[in-house]
Amino acid sequence: MVVIGNEILSGKITDSNSAFLARELRNLGVSLERITVVPDEIDVVADAVSYCSEQFDFVFTSGGIGPTHDDVTIDGVARAFGVAVIEHPSLRRTIEEHAGADPPGAYLKMAQVPEGSELVEGDKVPFATVKFRNVYVLPGIPEIFEAKVRALCERFRTRPYHIREVLVREAEADIAPYLNATLAAFPDLLLGSYPKLSHPDYRVRLTLESKDEGYVERALEDLIGRMPAKYVVRTTG
Amino acid sequence: MVVIGNEILSGKITDSNSAFLARELRNLGVSLERITVVPDEIDVVADAVSYCSEQFDFVFTSGGIGPTHDDVTIDGVARAFGVAVIEHPSLRRTIEEHAGADPPGAYLKMAQVPEGSELVEGDKVPFATVKFRNVYVLPGIPEIFEAKVRALCERFRTRPYHIREVLVREAEADIAPYLNATLAAFPDLLLGSYPKLSHPDYRVRLTLESKDEGYVERALEDLIGRMPAKYVVRTTG
Repeated sequence: MVVIGNEILSGKITDSNSAFLARELRNLGVSLERITVVPDEIDVVADAVSYCSEQFDFVFTSGGIGPTHDDVTIDGVARAFGVAVIEHPSLRRTIEEHAGADPPGAYLKMAQVPEGSELVEGDKVPFATVKFRNVYVLPGIPEIFEAKVRALCERFRTRPYHIREVLVREAEADIAPYLNATLAAFPDLLLGSYPKLSHPDYRVRLTLESKDEGYVERALEDLIGRMPAKYVVRTTG
Repeated sequence: MVVIGNEILSGKITDSNSAFLARELRNLGVSLERITVVPDEIDVVADAVSYCSEQFDFVFTSGGIGPTHDDVTIDGVARAFGVAVIEHPSLRRTIEEHAGADPPGAYLKMAQVPEGSELVEGDKVPFATVKFRNVYVLPGIPEIFEAKVRALCERFRTRPYHIREVLVREAEADIAPYLNATLAAFPDLLLGSYPKLSHPDYRVRLTLESKDEGYVERALEDLIGRMPAKYVVRTTG
């Protein structure tokens, strides 16, 4: 995910889109590998999009697609792939339906796409989503970002992650040897260890994950069997 | 800023440290140029830290410095600069004060630093901050991250940004020509335009910023003079 916006880097607006996308993708069985927040600069957007498009299966951008001077995402995506920016006739029609025939230039900026883009229709939001190769260009306004992700998400669904949690009342450093032993026995386990300060019930939340449900259950049994019973507050999930 | 943590990419935990750091740095007059969230993988952490250390004046990492298997930030920073990981005698003493003489290995993991690190003392938190070249290594737990940033922040303070805001009741596309005209007259102005859906009072929040207070005031006067008076809800700041 590439988030575009000076307002986030300057602390004026707190980005909620990345946390939303992270949760949605995980629920779809998709692993989010990178989030990068960049300023409203065409070259910087281009570098980040180019890198992520090469490294990963899909890229989602957030922000920078409005009508003003600081909306540079379309230019950035086009530059990432060395293509021109053109006006898309279908997007122009949508704008004319909203703003009337012969709309001012700032409205038409929102009809611009990298040449060769596909439009993904069927959203419950009025504007189609611009897709260039493996890059989905999404808006920064959270209400619209979320609606578009919900409309798109089924195309990404894959085998789900299975997760179990263990809440532990001892400190991380004291349970680390048990975690390492379980990991040695279950090397493909995704094992997270998250300390929590001043929670009345527990000090560490452990998450055990895999796409193989039986593997998670066996790893959980292994870990619980290793730790002194009094360490464990409860298991969930 | 480099944020390290599978838990953020998988949506289990929402990162608040980047928004906190963004606001704090801005208040100090410092421009945050990049936020990158990476998984708990040594090579990926190393690549992100190496890139940011070269591109920017300072780098802050968040997360991945605890005692468990998924805490790989120290290894990642060391690999970024091609140095070894060593035990720091002063950090070992701090750990021994807390955990007793001859602490278990998982505790001692927290005494490890990239060889050549400096310790920044004087925090109001018990542990010193590890600094390697221009990289400050900070913990992921928000309470401790924030305390450490507050303890460190005066060393980064520089000339402040001056900011004025204008709330506008017209749509972004309708005010874009005025924004472009003001930017042509004030090319060094940092001008942000942030649409707000369904706010009762305004549709766009404009922010005008510069380190030169007079420049911001003249740009504000220029912009207000261009727009029809009825567009403007109010100016603040």
